[in-house]
Amino acid sequence: MSRYFADIEPVTFGGADSADPMAFRHYNPTEMLGDKTMAEHLRFAVCYWHNFVWEGNDPFGGQTFERPWFPADTMALAKQKADDAFDMFRILGVPYFCFHDHDVRPEGDSLKESHDRLNEMADYFAEKMANGGPKLLWGTANMFSNRRYMSGASTNPDPDVFAYCASTVKSCMDVTHRLDGENYVLWGGREGYETLLNTDLDRELEQMGRFLSMVVEYKHKIGFKGAILIEPKPQEPTKHQYDYDVATVYGFLRRFGLEDEVQVNVEQGHAILAGHSFEHELAMARTLGIFGSIDMNRNDYQSGWDTDQFPNSPSEAALAYYEVLKAGGFTTGGTNFDAKLRRQSLDASDLIAAHVGGMDVCARGLKSAHTMLADDALEAPRRARYAGWEADAAQAMLAEGATLDGIAAKAEAAGLNPQPASGQQEKLENIVNRYV
Amino acid sequence: MSRYFADIEPVTFGGADSADPMAFRHYNPTEMLGDKTMAEHLRFAVCYWHNFVWEGNDPFGGQTFERPWFPADTMALAKQKADDAFDMFRILGVPYFCFHDHDVRPEGDSLKESHDRLNEMADYFAEKMANGGPKLLWGTANMFSNRRYMSGASTNPDPDVFAYCASTVKSCMDVTHRLDGENYVLWGGREGYETLLNTDLDRELEQMGRFLSMVVEYKHKIGFKGAILIEPKPQEPTKHQYDYDVATVYGFLRRFGLEDEVQVNVEQGHAILAGHSFEHELAMARTLGIFGSIDMNRNDYQSGWDTDQFPNSPSEAALAYYEVLKAGGFTTGGTNFDAKLRRQSLDASDLIAAHVGGMDVCARGLKSAHTMLADDALEAPRRARYAGWEADAAQAMLAEGATLDGIAAKAEAAGLNPQPASGQQEKLENIVNRYV
Amino acid sequence: MSRYFADIEPVTFGGADSADPMAFRHYNPTEMLGDKTMAEHLRFAVCYWHNFVWEGNDPFGGQTFERPWFPADTMALAKQKADDAFDMFRILGVPYFCFHDHDVRPEGDSLKESHDRLNEMADYFAEKMANGGPKLLWGTANMFSNRRYMSGASTNPDPDVFAYCASTVKSCMDVTHRLDGENYVLWGGREGYETLLNTDLDRELEQMGRFLSMVVEYKHKIGFKGAILIEPKPQEPTKHQYDYDVATVYGFLRRFGLEDEVQVNVEQGHAILAGHSFEHELAMARTLGIFGSIDMNRNDYQSGWDTDQFPNSPSEAALAYYEVLKAGGFTTGGTNFDAKLRRQSLDASDLIAAHVGGMDVCARGLKSAHTMLADDALEAPRRARYAGWEADAAQAMLAEGATLDGIAAKAEAAGLNPQPASGQQEKLENIVNRYV
Amino acid sequence: MSRYFADIEPVTFGGADSADPMAFRHYNPTEMLGDKTMAEHLRFAVCYWHNFVWEGNDPFGGQTFERPWFPADTMALAKQKADDAFDMFRILGVPYFCFHDHDVRPEGDSLKESHDRLNEMADYFAEKMANGGPKLLWGTANMFSNRRYMSGASTNPDPDVFAYCASTVKSCMDVTHRLDGENYVLWGGREGYETLLNTDLDRELEQMGRFLSMVVEYKHKIGFKGAILIEPKPQEPTKHQYDYDVATVYGFLRRFGLEDEVQVNVEQGHAILAGHSFEHELAMARTLGIFGSIDMNRNDYQSGWDTDQFPNSPSEAALAYYEVLKAGGFTTGGTNFDAKLRRQSLDASDLIAAHVGGMDVCARGLKSAHTMLADDALEAPRRARYAGWEADAAQAMLAEGATLDGIAAKAEAAGLNPQPASGQQEKLENIVNRYV
Repeated sequence: MSRYFADIEPVTFGGADSADPMAFRHYNPTEMLGDKTMAEHLRFAVCYWHNFVWEGNDPFGGQTFERPWFPADTMALAKQKADDAFDMFRILGVPYFCFHDHDVRPEGDSLKESHDRLNEMADYFAEKMANGGPKLLWGTANMFSNRRYMSGASTNPDPDVFAYCASTVKSCMDVTHRLDGENYVLWGGREGYETLLNTDLDRELEQMGRFLSMVVEYKHKIGFKGAILIEPKPQEPTKHQYDYDVATVYGFLRRFGLEDEVQVNVEQGHAILAGHSFEHELAMARTLGIFGSIDMNRNDYQSGWDTDQFPNSPSEAALAYYEVLKAGGFTTGGTNFDAKLRRQSLDASDLIAAHVGGMDVCARGLKSAHTMLADDALEAPRRARYAGWEADAAQAMLAEGATLDGIAAKAEAAGLNPQPASGQQEKLENIVNRYV
Repeated sequence: MSRYFADIEPVTFGGADSADPMAFRHYNPTEMLGDKTMAEHLRFAVCYWHNFVWEGNDPFGGQTFERPWFPADTMALAKQKADDAFDMFRILGVPYFCFHDHDVRPEGDSLKESHDRLNEMADYFAEKMANGGPKLLWGTANMFSNRRYMSGASTNPDPDVFAYCASTVKSCMDVTHRLDGENYVLWGGREGYETLLNTDLDRELEQMGRFLSMVVEYKHKIGFKGAILIEPKPQEPTKHQYDYDVATVYGFLRRFGLEDEVQVNVEQGHAILAGHSFEHELAMARTLGIFGSIDMNRNDYQSGWDTDQFPNSPSEAALAYYEVLKAGGFTTGGTNFDAKLRRQSLDASDLIAAHVGGMDVCARGLKSAHTMLADDALEAPRRARYAGWEADAAQAMLAEGATLDGIAAKAEAAGLNPQPASGQQEKLENIVNRYV
Repeated sequence: MSRYFADIEPVTFGGADSADPMAFRHYNPTEMLGDKTMAEHLRFAVCYWHNFVWEGNDPFGGQTFERPWFPADTMALAKQKADDAFDMFRILGVPYFCFHDHDVRPEGDSLKESHDRLNEMADYFAEKMANGGPKLLWGTANMFSNRRYMSGASTNPDPDVFAYCASTVKSCMDVTHRLDGENYVLWGGREGYETLLNTDLDRELEQMGRFLSMVVEYKHKIGFKGAILIEPKPQEPTKHQYDYDVATVYGFLRRFGLEDEVQVNVEQGHAILAGHSFEHELAMARTLGIFGSIDMNRNDYQSGWDTDQFPNSPSEAALAYYEVLKAGGFTTGGTNFDAKLRRQSLDASDLIAAHVGGMDVCARGLKSAHTMLADDALEAPRRARYAGWEADAAQAMLAEGATLDGIAAKAEAAGLNPQPASGQQEKLENIVNRYV
Repeated sequence: MSRYFADIEPVTFGGADSADPMAFRHYNPTEMLGDKTMAEHLRFAVCYWHNFVWEGNDPFGGQTFERPWFPADTMALAKQKADDAFDMFRILGVPYFCFHDHDVRPEGDSLKESHDRLNEMADYFAEKMANGGPKLLWGTANMFSNRRYMSGASTNPDPDVFAYCASTVKSCMDVTHRLDGENYVLWGGREGYETLLNTDLDRELEQMGRFLSMVVEYKHKIGFKGAILIEPKPQEPTKHQYDYDVATVYGFLRRFGLEDEVQVNVEQGHAILAGHSFEHELAMARTLGIFGSIDMNRNDYQSGWDTDQFPNSPSEAALAYYEVLKAGGFTTGGTNFDAKLRRQSLDASDLIAAHVGGMDVCARGLKSAHTMLADDALEAPRRARYAGWEADAAQAMLAEGATLDGIAAKAEAAGLNPQPASGQQEKLENIVNRYV
């Protein structure tokens, strides 16, 4: 059986002037930026699902992609798929990959058979990983595609689905742990509702809180050292998700006392669908202490559905990695491409080229961000803007013991009449453009 | 000086078949629904700002309204405005009104003069209120119109603005307390940012948290028994508000330990601008234990700015009051119209007719909601959908001591294969239409 | 083989107070409104595709529906599907249905076989139609699901696809003509582009114009008396469709000289996705002389993808039918439900109940609209608002021979200083609510 | 009286490595790109309104800017404003400016006085223009700010407003002609409606068509050689404008036979608010033969109101100028900044820096676009994609005489079964990023 990517050579760094569509122009893995290499900063991961599972259908059209491993409904085809997947990881030179249980094995006739198959595939992966393959950035469970999840996973009105999910997540956590995964992700695309008319919000939130608490307990039980990550997800497919955005997830974690145990995997596309910028979500995660990892796939700003496109804006990448660097860089997290080809991009070379372009945009953004920070280009004016707060009298207003009436009395006595100073937005935007 | 509403008679209940545009067709204040009158259920309030302050301008056009009290830049004009405002309250027969400091008095040359003028107007109001006028649903401070707030109120980069705000809120809380206001509202339209490039998110959130804590402490200090309410506000005018929606506010309150002290005033228009339905926001507030009051003004679903229109959908009103009733009805809260006329609606009679229509839509919605609840029309199918969770084995999964692996083992052993049941959305929507 | 709807009785009119979820409360087919029955006004049609073909999948989930005729990949199953479809038409008592070629027959191995199968199914339909079944409101071709159309139908970069489309449309027009269809619809969901980078806009528009011209010529050649309708379609699945909205279609028709030959089938959901109200699109179609038919399925205002939900707003239905009545009512057109169940609505009774609710909302809206017109409730104030234009001097400004400088001279000489009058939007909205 | 920009030196080209915020890094006016200089390609214009008239207010806040010429309600202040405006034009070195009547003179007590004042200011401008000042790219009339236009300009229900507009446009066209303006623009922000309930669509479209016809006739009468441009405008402030987007304007022009007389001024921000990309609107204008000029100001993709921000995306600028170059470049048109400072950007230097950044982004985009075209980087794959259409048999299908049934017969006989080829979107996006 011939390999799908047989004709494609490993991608190498060609330099900024390269016109080779299959060479990196910016991503030079071993190049140092500060005290880390680019590879260590970016920690790229490729996902299994969009690349090796998705068939190219959209709401008005069927399969467009033809891959030799489709429909992957036998273990033999699943292994052929794995062979080609690891070929692609090798061609791209990425240090990590990610998968759902559902991506890598056909579902069995029973829970047990599904788990057994997952374990068999994990063995298959382990061997490839030991032989120079990438590491596992995160594992996760697909609890949204099958019709049993149509009304929710842990939030399902049927307690049997809750139990089914417990079994599924346990098996995925076990496998992730065994493969030395660095994180475990929960994506709650079906945890929410389409109509409030048939939904018991109180129950569903309690179910979800209890489920997440058990996941955290189980992590500790098995000694998994990776991070548990929730991926905020608004809108499609379930209009009102309970994990709408970073701030919503934070409130949920606080409610169930999990804010020190769980972090977020922030996706650019989901940020946009929630009405926010990606950098807003990253900054919120940082300031709330729950920054974990990122999914670096954009959404069309003018399409209300989840377009999961490869990143292609150097400016946006610069602003995103600026926040990542301000958060101290990744620890267990990394840069995953939860991105899919446009359904008209049929060829094997499209799969590779799309990742090459995406990785290059990220590398370019990272370099811009790193230099902006090193130059203090944005932080100096920011510090200047808030400098007044460094005064003792100002700090006293924020300290314990300050009172509204105490401050009010002083303000009135002083006849305060504060005058605004320019916010300089355009000048700051010009500075960014100088670095992009 | 002639009164602005001199030609308009008090609005009365004309019955469902009335064709009189100045009569209520549904709002019959003394009609009982369950154990309360409609007036007690709805607790209508009229706002000062849109009705008596706004001049009809939009981003591309200037003043269209001509009111005899404009520009209200003297205390005499402010009192003329108050006279006409209380005439309108009387004509509509509303039990409550709401105001910002800025609505009712011209700003003074100093903080002190501004506060003195506010107190003088409060005296003027107190007399009218004692003589049959409406009560005060809530007071609030305008900390967004003046250029001193262009970069935020409590979140301003200038600590003097923070102090200025403390003085302003204290004076407004004092007046609200003196007038027996039932709530005090904080609307943070400027608490957020337009560009992250010039914003210190960490500092600003800390400032806002500290400010709110002092507000709560001051409330207790002066013995104010009303509720402190935050009004979630997304988008315009500050793209990224820190009070984006109910879930975001909840997380903020938890972070600063204020979730038992502060509730929310939910506006339909703001819910829509945040990408949610109004009933979603109301249900979230209820389930999170922070439901307070509502602003019953819609937003155009297809206009991205704050349109603040009078409610005109009986269906939407029914779903909203359904959630209010499920939350136990209003305690300190009520139904405020934070609604403004379209800028082409120039006449005094437009002001009255708009409120008549809005109040009627609310009354109609309330009646529908009340009957749906009384008939168990939606709750019965909802209970049936989740009935499986009433079983002991199901409850055990949610109880302390349940573990992921324990549940997983049982699920695998039982060979669970849950089958979905219809969510019946269309049937439930048809039931609602039967009641509207 | 048992019939899918065997347990469901034909739906009858139960009256406004009926609580039977399977009875009409408003749609009384033989009730007269003016000089037509409700049935004659509304001309209801049920579509084949969403009801009998769609499997309940969404972008994140697979099949949820289980129908006995699935996967309908043999002619025997296609006929079983037809049997059940006509059962549903009978149960609902609708006078019309609509279909794509692809809905009713499995695709053959060749164009010829596909056409033969379509013809065989048309014979099967003809017999049912002759025996009391509904008539055909319109036929159409599915030129979007198969991967051959991924880059467009008539606008495809490959001329063979253009030719393939010609063959397909010809066969569908032939069948529509043979079954006495009253219209033929072209839906161009793939006629547009996803990225301008690979698109030759000039060529594609020329191809589409030429194709439509040939369709019109063929209509006349075969003596088809029905209307050719274009269905405006924005956004999903092809971000930039060439038939974005009514005004865009009009410009296209003018460009190719087809404005007297082709009309529009306006869908509420598509109007919303294009940023318009349904009534706007209907009024534009009327005033531009191209009003044809309607698809009466709403879109969630807050979901950017095509949700195709059953109508459930009596207010919106009233405003829509108001425009239909102002346009003179339907001639060849009708009210088609291009609506699909929510994917959690699994049962046969959901299919029936959804249509019952939708038909009732339409009937209720029609009654409101008819009475508003009969009462001159909106037209009287509208005429009054523009009354100034009835003066001779005003009409002269619009007549041939009037000049900018001539009018300017008079305006300056007269010292014109026009004063605005109230637009009365809220009062008019209240009037509508009185009728809903 | 000291000049507002007295402390600011003329902006010069500093080279790509310059860190001077007040120097161009990309815009080198005399640098040749092909057979034109950058200045000739870009034809930059600065607008009067946002820079010298707007006071910084937003829907929730008042004036933030303090300019020495405010409120400009006397002719002396108007001239002071003009002095400072021309200083800014000189500092930036722009070859063009644009204005509304309302921007440059206080409104008079009568139409005649307003016109006289406009003429007096035109004399004042003429002298400055003769002495090295910029030329006039276009003039236009403000028919939207004053309350007399609240219900429309030429589409007003009051014929006196129509006459008032005729007088106003005539005077603005006269002045534009006298100052050798190269275009005259009509912006119809009030030509549309807020509610269909009070609108007579048929009349209003006829009024607008008649008005535009008279404008064209008057142009020829006075020998004005510039172009008449309509600026498509969706959404705010009038939800449903009649000039929604390029395709809508095209249909309107065809309806009134004006497609050879009138072109479009396309604004990026308006494209976005209409749900399109800027390049889509530019490509549509080109292919429809009505491309005229551009307003190069972006809109926040996530804010539904008109944000009129300076361009800051090199990628977007590259794609926009690519379409401009494909359209043959500007003839009478140019690149106008209809952009405003953020309201927190208070300083004179903010005004200059914002334009410097915007001009640089445009220059950078132009260079990228020019090189992509010169390299055939996008056109070569585009030609290859449509190469099949060059065959005689393919062309024959588009020619007169081809018939649907004729093509169908051949397709069926040939057993066509077209196979799709990759659309290569990601590869093409990567190519663009190589040039940006």
